[in-house]
Amino acid sequence: MRCWWRQVTALGVVLGLSGLNSSIAAGPSNGLSYPQGWQDWSTLAVSHRTDNGTVRVILGNEIAIAAARRGETQPWPDGAILGKVVWKAEALADWPAAIGPGAFVHAEFMARAEDAGETGWRWGRWVGAELTPFEQGDAQCIACHSPVKSRDWVFTEPAAVPLDPDG
Amino acid sequence: MRCWWRQVTALGVVLGLSGLNSSIAAGPSNGLSYPQGWQDWSTLAVSHRTDNGTVRVILGNEIAIAAARRGETQPWPDGAILGKVVWKAEALADWPAAIGPGAFVHAEFMARAEDAGETGWRWGRWVGAELTPFEQGDAQCIACHSPVKSRDWVFTEPAAVPLDPDG
Repeated sequence: MRCWWRQVTALGVVLGLSGLNSSIAAGPSNGLSYPQGWQDWSTLAVSHRTDNGTVRVILGNEIAIAAARRGETQPWPDGAILGKVVWKAEALADWPAAIGPGAFVHAEFMARAEDAGETGWRWGRWVGAELTPFEQGDAQCIACHSPVKSRDWVFTEPAAVPLDPDG
Repeated sequence: MRCWWRQVTALGVVLGLSGLNSSIAAGPSNGLSYPQGWQDWSTLAVSHRTDNGTVRVILGNEIAIAAARRGETQPWPDGAILGKVVWKAEALADWPAAIGPGAFVHAEFMARAEDAGETGWRWGRWVGAELTPFEQGDAQCIACHSPVKSRDWVFTEPAAVPLDPDG
């Protein structure tokens, strides 16, 4: 388990702390623009992949969250972006039966776009603390998601979350 | 895995969809006011408790998220609220090695307040789709968190998350 800063690039820290804008930005991955600000998106679900030893939070941009709350995810609407933020799975030092996030692995996104080709989604991944764009094409993403082709290519079921009583 | 709506009370759905304000609200738990709007808070971490078969997302209000990003969590600042949203752990139908959220169990919160007594925190829990306030006192919360008393009573290490390159 590490604090936010330890895996962040020195440049990211400086610019993050000072709040400056700069011309530096993560480039696109497979033609998908880097989705700025995903760190503040709301939660759709979580997962622990026991086959590859990672834990994840599944986030949505505002369009995706609104669609999930309306139950309108077949298909997800144009403009929806779903993100998976992935860490190495690691037992908590103070509660070893709890598996939490260790080292940051990558953040990957799928973005619904009407002109995005056969799947209706653009696919991108930014790897490691440097957020290096994955540039090996989207065939790998599509192959992995093919078991859920009939569910608009999405594994994530939005988790059951009660709304506030006074809405 | 269930959609947002299936476990939500009919009242919650109606008020949520219509966006009405109403005088209905979850009451306090152990003297902690219900933290309205937590469903939209940003993520601090995730966990899979293998000892009791639940998965969780750990969220923070704006004060908590800002403190985590500055590394100022010893102690957490006055006004910080940390939330744990808890679901039954359930294998994904389409990827059985992935453990995700099933039925909603409860949402629990700890809120840093200078006048909160010996721990410096107020403790509350809202149970099930009806968000029923837990009213058995905070001794149970404090006993469970006692292994991390030296870390301001908090299990959660904020997960490593790179900031955007152009901050």
